[in-house]
Amino acid sequence: MSSSPSPRGRPRDPRSHEAIVSAATELVTEVGYAATSIGAVAARAGVGKDTVYRRWRGKPELVFEAVFTTTDHAPTPDTGTLAGDLTALLRDLIDEFHAPAAAAALPGLLADFAADPELKARIRTDFLAPSKERLLIVFERAAARGEIAADTPVDLVLDTLAGAVFFHVGLVGEQPDRRLADRLAAVVSKGIEIR
Amino acid sequence: MSSSPSPRGRPRDPRSHEAIVSAATELVTEVGYAATSIGAVAARAGVGKDTVYRRWRGKPELVFEAVFTTTDHAPTPDTGTLAGDLTALLRDLIDEFHAPAAAAALPGLLADFAADPELKARIRTDFLAPSKERLLIVFERAAARGEIAADTPVDLVLDTLAGAVFFHVGLVGEQPDRRLADRLAAVVSKGIEIR
Repeated sequence: MSSSPSPRGRPRDPRSHEAIVSAATELVTEVGYAATSIGAVAARAGVGKDTVYRRWRGKPELVFEAVFTTTDHAPTPDTGTLAGDLTALLRDLIDEFHAPAAAAALPGLLADFAADPELKARIRTDFLAPSKERLLIVFERAAARGEIAADTPVDLVLDTLAGAVFFHVGLVGEQPDRRLADRLAAVVSKGIEIR
Repeated sequence: MSSSPSPRGRPRDPRSHEAIVSAATELVTEVGYAATSIGAVAARAGVGKDTVYRRWRGKPELVFEAVFTTTDHAPTPDTGTLAGDLTALLRDLIDEFHAPAAAAALPGLLADFAADPELKARIRTDFLAPSKERLLIVFERAAARGEIAADTPVDLVLDTLAGAVFFHVGLVGEQPDRRLADRLAAVVSKGIEIR
């Protein structure tokens, strides 16, 4: 395999992409985020380091894609009430961040993102984009039902919920606790409801 | 200076302690958390590395003490209402975490704590102990006024508030926003009030 990209953009082998993503996920789970290097990922995937760097700018970008982006997106909950929808959303978020690779990667990954000016600006969007879309849908329904005001600040609520989950699951690393999701959803929904 | 501790515990020079703590704070602010090494701190403080290691187990312990523990503790707010007290508490927390050294240190410091089994168990207590004491006092007063139930979950509320602040200030790193404190306090106080 040559070390310079083909000038005509030879199609990249999707099997390499998958192998690299799987290797990154496995290594982070096995040895933790700090000990996972591009070299180790490349070796596990059976490719050269240049193959990895052609696709990803660096370790944070690779680990983020491997661990935090999935092709399956659970449908937005529609339980009939804001409290029920927020509870379901939070349970999903907690489950996602408690998965072994995510729990192993999150603190170090956030630190690397925060330390890189290019990535720092993307923390909120990258980590929270799917959740924000779902929360917007939940808020639209709640507003239509008259449960909340139309101008309820979605970013504030999202940051609050995500921050609490990041802190509880990603840092303190406690066992997944549905009770956390339920209580947090109850407090926040009561906090923004207008009826 | 000898490299082995005196067997009789010769009193440690408090000026060294202060010099080391100041050096750590300066360096983290100047070059960031990752680039701050024990060697660089020792050099800046004009002591040997062994002098630093006699007092602190490692970099995370030193930076934590330098940046996040202060001898001045602001009095617990007493505004007459839960919402007012929570607003004041959050403004203090945001101001503390937005100070240059704290903002520079927080993401990397949290990641190092999370990666060390001995420290991970101390994240919640170390980072949040002063805030928890103050929140307990605020909750006692609010319960006495009948604003909240006596069994309102203080840890949940604290984790939620701290998580939101850590996320907003420590990771996303936006300008200090008193509006964040006010809105977050409003949502959470309304979320836990029973009258």
